[in-house]
Amino acid sequence: MKKNAFYAQSGGVTAVINASACGVIETARKHKDRIGKVFAGRNGIIGALTEDLIDTTKESARAIAALRHTPSGAFGSCRYKMKSIEANRREYERLIEVFKAHNIGYFFYNGGGDSADTCLKVSQLGEAMGYPLQAIHVPKTVDNDLPITDNCPGFGSVAKYIAVSTLEATFDVRSMAKTSTKVFVLEVMGRHAGWIAAAGAMASTKDQELPIIVLFPEVLFDQKKFLAKVDALVKKFGYCTVVVSEGCHYPDGKFLAEQGTRDAFGHAQLGGAAPVVANMIKDALGHKFHWGVADYMQRAARHIASKADVDQAYATGKAAVEFALKGHNSVMPTIDRVSDKPYKWKVGMAPLAKVANVEKMMPKNFITTDGFGITERCRTYLGPLMKGEDYPPYKDGLPQYVTLKNVAAPKKLPEFKL
Amino acid sequence: MKKNAFYAQSGGVTAVINASACGVIETARKHKDRIGKVFAGRNGIIGALTEDLIDTTKESARAIAALRHTPSGAFGSCRYKMKSIEANRREYERLIEVFKAHNIGYFFYNGGGDSADTCLKVSQLGEAMGYPLQAIHVPKTVDNDLPITDNCPGFGSVAKYIAVSTLEATFDVRSMAKTSTKVFVLEVMGRHAGWIAAAGAMASTKDQELPIIVLFPEVLFDQKKFLAKVDALVKKFGYCTVVVSEGCHYPDGKFLAEQGTRDAFGHAQLGGAAPVVANMIKDALGHKFHWGVADYMQRAARHIASKADVDQAYATGKAAVEFALKGHNSVMPTIDRVSDKPYKWKVGMAPLAKVANVEKMMPKNFITTDGFGITERCRTYLGPLMKGEDYPPYKDGLPQYVTLKNVAAPKKLPEFKL
Repeated sequence: MKKNAFYAQSGGVTAVINASACGVIETARKHKDRIGKVFAGRNGIIGALTEDLIDTTKESARAIAALRHTPSGAFGSCRYKMKSIEANRREYERLIEVFKAHNIGYFFYNGGGDSADTCLKVSQLGEAMGYPLQAIHVPKTVDNDLPITDNCPGFGSVAKYIAVSTLEATFDVRSMAKTSTKVFVLEVMGRHAGWIAAAGAMASTKDQELPIIVLFPEVLFDQKKFLAKVDALVKKFGYCTVVVSEGCHYPDGKFLAEQGTRDAFGHAQLGGAAPVVANMIKDALGHKFHWGVADYMQRAARHIASKADVDQAYATGKAAVEFALKGHNSVMPTIDRVSDKPYKWKVGMAPLAKVANVEKMMPKNFITTDGFGITERCRTYLGPLMKGEDYPPYKDGLPQYVTLKNVAAPKKLPEFKL
Repeated sequence: MKKNAFYAQSGGVTAVINASACGVIETARKHKDRIGKVFAGRNGIIGALTEDLIDTTKESARAIAALRHTPSGAFGSCRYKMKSIEANRREYERLIEVFKAHNIGYFFYNGGGDSADTCLKVSQLGEAMGYPLQAIHVPKTVDNDLPITDNCPGFGSVAKYIAVSTLEATFDVRSMAKTSTKVFVLEVMGRHAGWIAAAGAMASTKDQELPIIVLFPEVLFDQKKFLAKVDALVKKFGYCTVVVSEGCHYPDGKFLAEQGTRDAFGHAQLGGAAPVVANMIKDALGHKFHWGVADYMQRAARHIASKADVDQAYATGKAAVEFALKGHNSVMPTIDRVSDKPYKWKVGMAPLAKVANVEKMMPKNFITTDGFGITERCRTYLGPLMKGEDYPPYKDGLPQYVTLKNVAAPKKLPEFKL
C-alpha cells in the first residue's frame, strides 16, 4: 500500500544534515511504487504540528542532489522539545492527525537524542491510536553524543574544520611569537562532551608536533595546573594554542564563560570562554594573546566537510528509507566501524529504545592523564572521521549552495495552536 | 657580479605570504649565475639585525614548492617597526653591515606600508654608505590598504574566507530562526579599513539575496539607525547576519569593543565587538543571538584561499626578483587590473616613495548610502579577488603544510643588542 513520507530536521543544524535529507529523498524517489510524496516539515516538527508541510516533489532532481553539498537545514529546523505524552498528549495526537490527513506512513526524523525520543513516542502513540507508522530516526549531531553508533553524522566535518583551523591558527601564532602574540585561544562547541575540542589536538601529529592544550568539559578546570602547562609550552616552543570547549567548567560547575563579567551597565557576561582564558594567561604570564570563537562557522563549514562524514550522512538517510521499506519501525541507522586501518564502516541498525535519552561522553582513556590532550586511542578513533575532502561546486568564488523553493502542500485540517 | 639575496616577512602574516616567498626563492634559484644564496630573516627584520640568517639553500625544491600552499610566515615574521634613520641610525647601519658581511646585494622585504617605508630607507642609507643595495618591496597585507596596486596579496583569501563563512553561518541562522537564533554576528579584522568586512556582504548575491548588515570602520556607528535596520531585516526575512569590523567605532572615536566592559576583578574589556553588538540587539529587540570571532582563522585559512590571490602572491614574489635582476631599486611590484569581466591583471611597478606611509581606504562609492552595505562598484572590484580555489594537498584529513628546517647561516659579526 502506497504511503507518503514525512521528513523533518531537528535541533542545531550541521554541514551535512542536508546530505541526509538528500539520501532520504533520492532513495524515496527510487521507490515510487511504495512511497508517494516526501513531505518535509517547515522548521522541523513544528511544520508537522501546524500542518505546514513542504511538498518536496516540487523540487527538481538537481536541487535535491545539491542538498548533498549544502550546509544547514534546507527546510528549516527548530529547537522545540515535545514534552512527555502524559504532559502533552494533545501534540502527539495532532501529529498523528496530520499524518493521517496526508496519508503519511513513514516518519523520518533527523536529529539528536531528544528527537530520537520523540520519534519513538510518536511511533508508540500511532500504534496505540490504531494508525501504525514506521518511524525511523536519522542520526545527526555535531556533539557526537549518540550511543550505539560509532559516530554521528555532522561531527566529522566539525572535527575537520576545528583541526584545520587549529593547525592554521597555530602556524600563524608560531610566525608571530618572537615579538607579538604568543598564545592563541580558540573556543569551540560542546557543552557536555569534549569531542569537538579533542579534534583541535589532531592538528599536532607525529610528523609535526605543535604545542596545543585542550580544555575539555569532562575535565574540571584547574587554573593553576593550566597556567603551569601554558608556561611550560611557551618556554619550550615560544608559543602555544589553547582549544577551549564552551562547556569547560570549574569544580563547582561554573562555566569559564560565566566568571561574572559585567558591562558598564551591569549586564551579565558578554564574552565567551576564549576571552576569559586569554585574559587569565595575560594576567598570570603576561603573554600577548589573540582569540577566536568558531561558533556557527564550525558547524556550517560545508566548504571543508569531511568526505567520510558526507558519505555517512547520505548513507544513513538512504538506509532510513530502506529500513522503512523492509518494515522496520522505531529504529535508527547506525555507523558501525569495521576496521580502523584501513578505515571501513557499514550501516547498522539500533532500536530507538536504546538510543533515546542516552548521552555518550568521551571515554576516559581518550584523554591524556594530565587532562590537556588526547591519547593514541582517541587519535585512532578521530582520524578516519575527518578523512577525505568533498568540496562543493563554486561559482564566482562562492560555493553554490542551494535554496529550495519550499512550496507548501495544501492544508486539510483546522488550525492548531502550539 | 654575483650577490646573495635577503628575504624577510614583516607584520601580520597571511594565507599566501609564503606563496610570495616561494616566488622569490624559486625565481632566484633559476638565476644562479646572478644570485647566490637566498638568506631569510628568522622572525623578519630582527633576523637581519641579529645576524640570524636562515640559509634557504638547505631546503629542498619540494619544501620550497610547498610554501606555495602553506599559510603564515615560514621563516617567522615580526612586529618591529624601525624608527626613523635620525632616531635610530645605529640599526640601519647594522643592517648594511650584515648585508655587507654576507655579500647581500638584493633586499626583498615582504610586508605592508611600514615595511615599504623601511625598505626605502634601507636602500637610501646603503647608497649613502657606499654599499648600494637593490631593495624591492613585495606587497602583503590582509588589510588591502596599500596604494597604487589594485589590491594586496593576502586580502583576496581573507575576503573569500569571510564571504564563505558569512554565507554558511547565514544559512545556519536561517535554519534556526523560527524558534531559536535570529541574529548572527561575525567579527572580522580591519582596524582602519573596511575591506574585509565588505567581503561579508558578497555572500548575498542577485541569485540569492541574504539579509546581511556590514559595520564598517569608515562609517561612524549610529546605534539607533543600526537597530532599526536589524529590526527591519528580521521582520522581513525572519533573521539576519551582522558582519562587524573590529575597527567599527562611535563618532567620538571609541571602538565598539571598548564599551567599558569589566570582569569581576575590574579588569578591562574581555570581549570584542561581536558580543557587544549581539548584546545590544538582544537588549533592544530581544532576539536570541550567536556570535563568532574569526580572528587568526581568517588570515591563516589557506584551505579556502582564493586562487587569484595565490597566483598574485607568487607573481609579485617572482617579479620582485626579476625587477632586481633588471637593475631596479626601491620599487614594489603592483597588481594592475586590466579588465573586470573577464578579470585580467598584470604585474606593474611602483616607486616605493609613492607607496610608503600611504593608506588606501575604501572609496566612498563602495559603501551604500545607508552605510550598511556595498555597492555594485564594490562587488565588481571584490568579486575577481575571491575567484578560484587552490586547495592544498591533504593527508589523513589534514592539509600538508610544510615546516622548513630553517638552518642558520654561520655568523660573521659580533653580537648586536636590539
